[in-house]
Amino acid sequence: MTELKSKFVKVYSVLKKELLHDSAFGLTDDSRNWVERIMDYNVPGGKLNRGLSVVDSYKLLRELTNSKYKSELSDDEIFLASVLGWSVEWIQACALVLDDIMDHSHTRRGHPCWFRLPKVGMIAINDGLILRNHVPRILRTHFQTEHYYLQLVDLFHEVECQTIAGQMLDLITTLAGEINLSSYSLPVYQQITLSKTSYYSFYLPVACALVMLGENLESHDDMKDILLEMGTYFQVQDDYLDCFGDPEVIGKIGTDIEDNKCTWLVVQALEHCNEEQKKLLYDNYGRKDPKQVAKVKELYKTLNLEDLFTQYENKTCKKLTKSIEALPNVAVQAVLKSFLAKIHKRLK
Amino acid sequence: MTELKSKFVKVYSVLKKELLHDSAFGLTDDSRNWVERIMDYNVPGGKLNRGLSVVDSYKLLRELTNSKYKSELSDDEIFLASVLGWSVEWIQACALVLDDIMDHSHTRRGHPCWFRLPKVGMIAINDGLILRNHVPRILRTHFQTEHYYLQLVDLFHEVECQTIAGQMLDLITTLAGEINLSSYSLPVYQQITLSKTSYYSFYLPVACALVMLGENLESHDDMKDILLEMGTYFQVQDDYLDCFGDPEVIGKIGTDIEDNKCTWLVVQALEHCNEEQKKLLYDNYGRKDPKQVAKVKELYKTLNLEDLFTQYENKTCKKLTKSIEALPNVAVQAVLKSFLAKIHKRLK
Repeated sequence: MTELKSKFVKVYSVLKKELLHDSAFGLTDDSRNWVERIMDYNVPGGKLNRGLSVVDSYKLLRELTNSKYKSELSDDEIFLASVLGWSVEWIQACALVLDDIMDHSHTRRGHPCWFRLPKVGMIAINDGLILRNHVPRILRTHFQTEHYYLQLVDLFHEVECQTIAGQMLDLITTLAGEINLSSYSLPVYQQITLSKTSYYSFYLPVACALVMLGENLESHDDMKDILLEMGTYFQVQDDYLDCFGDPEVIGKIGTDIEDNKCTWLVVQALEHCNEEQKKLLYDNYGRKDPKQVAKVKELYKTLNLEDLFTQYENKTCKKLTKSIEALPNVAVQAVLKSFLAKIHKRLK
Repeated sequence: MTELKSKFVKVYSVLKKELLHDSAFGLTDDSRNWVERIMDYNVPGGKLNRGLSVVDSYKLLRELTNSKYKSELSDDEIFLASVLGWSVEWIQACALVLDDIMDHSHTRRGHPCWFRLPKVGMIAINDGLILRNHVPRILRTHFQTEHYYLQLVDLFHEVECQTIAGQMLDLITTLAGEINLSSYSLPVYQQITLSKTSYYSFYLPVACALVMLGENLESHDDMKDILLEMGTYFQVQDDYLDCFGDPEVIGKIGTDIEDNKCTWLVVQALEHCNEEQKKLLYDNYGRKDPKQVAKVKELYKTLNLEDLFTQYENKTCKKLTKSIEALPNVAVQAVLKSFLAKIHKRLK
């Protein structure tokens, strides 16, 4: 573990302690214990990529952007960037807890989904809200006196609105897809992905770092576009891994086919299949029966979607690299390249 | 309908239109239609007491508090107070959508619960989040330039934290109650009620009106205490009506006994029963079987809980009236008395 990562990881328990004793929630001993379990089970167990990328982005941007920042990062700066990183992880934890219920998922990060635990069930809905309400408390405690406080609050709120609107589009598209798959297309897929994933996973971490550096986000629209496109690439990988990845490695058993999801794979299949194959897809997609799921996977193989994915991955990586190198600012270039390197050819 | 109420009601469609075209959510045509359905089904169909009480409180407080406000309310003032009133109704709508899932409810306001509609199901979780995220957008659009904007944001957030912490305590107490009822007591009941209901139903509307009048909320702690106590009274009535009210009148079929809820009735029953009756309660409370539910209701009748409720109601009303009359400010007195008059002896 790098020194920066180990400093980042330690901030979790600081925030946890603050939140457990935050009078805004008026917790009793019983409810305090429950909140601790919610946090420990759902917040820190992921890859922490989103959170760490706030700290990494801040470091890179600060070193390269501005000559007045040539000195080493202070412990205070690392702490504050880590607090923002954990805020992103908190948002992610809330989204996962609630999405897993809505998607009828079984496992997450190699463990049962929170709502699947015997004593949790539908209480998980309120638990998700608890995690969601932790974020403004964290921001308030640590940034209330900073000149960019309102910008931060607005940023997190913009991203949340986009994310839930994307989740909604995903859910209602899936609902329409239960009647037939004719509404599944690449533009719909891209719209869902853009709002549901790219905003909070890609744009938010870098935007946090920029706000902390006193930057005006409106002057970084070109960078935002690239990050959002990278988010689509990430989601395409996610869809691919859900079907073709190793459950042991990705930490969950994919159920996109059973759940009738509008994925990159099914959109490609619809685009490349003949009438007979289309009928097979319509008859077997979105069904729980493992035999029907197997037929869909078989069709994906017949249509060479694995090769198509590899081609997509290579093309996208080249295109993104070109866009990044066209940016005027080397610091921003470095941040985006490090992001791209982290996700390119990922297996989990 | 009074003129003020009719003005209040009209503001709903203004806010609805703004939110449907708010670019923060990046809605497509399909998702815009869905959001409109969520709003129309869940926001305006209640008694509107909470929302209206913001406008009523503002009017009373403004007329009585300050001599500089002797003129008539302007249309702008009525509009802004109505916007805050609808924000409270939006918060309520979000809470009802999510609570109904967690409480396994069937009907609400005389209709099936939103999540029970054929095409909705667990999507309702995200729909609740949509409603919840409308509130900061409403506040931002209409109050961003007011000097009390941050106070409003903080107030809504304080109340939300209290409400979800209360919902959590309710849920985990019910969970413990599934093993045995020994954790159900009046103090636990009061703590749940205080945070889960009183904050947003009683304190929030009056606090909104005070903030709009430029008042510092910290100097109104005595009033806050009375409003929170009134909230407990309201919840006791709710528990009573869930069991003894007319489903046609209250608009829902009560399931507190089936759901093992820590209600005022069961707490009183536990306090007044003998060992044999206690065994009956332990053996039949929290079970779905209608015969077992009937046994619990029978016991409530044997223990004269209906009379006990009437005594509680009279005693509480007297006590609250006395506390209100001890307040120094006649305007605040008038507001609290009008609140009390609205809920005293209510049948729905």
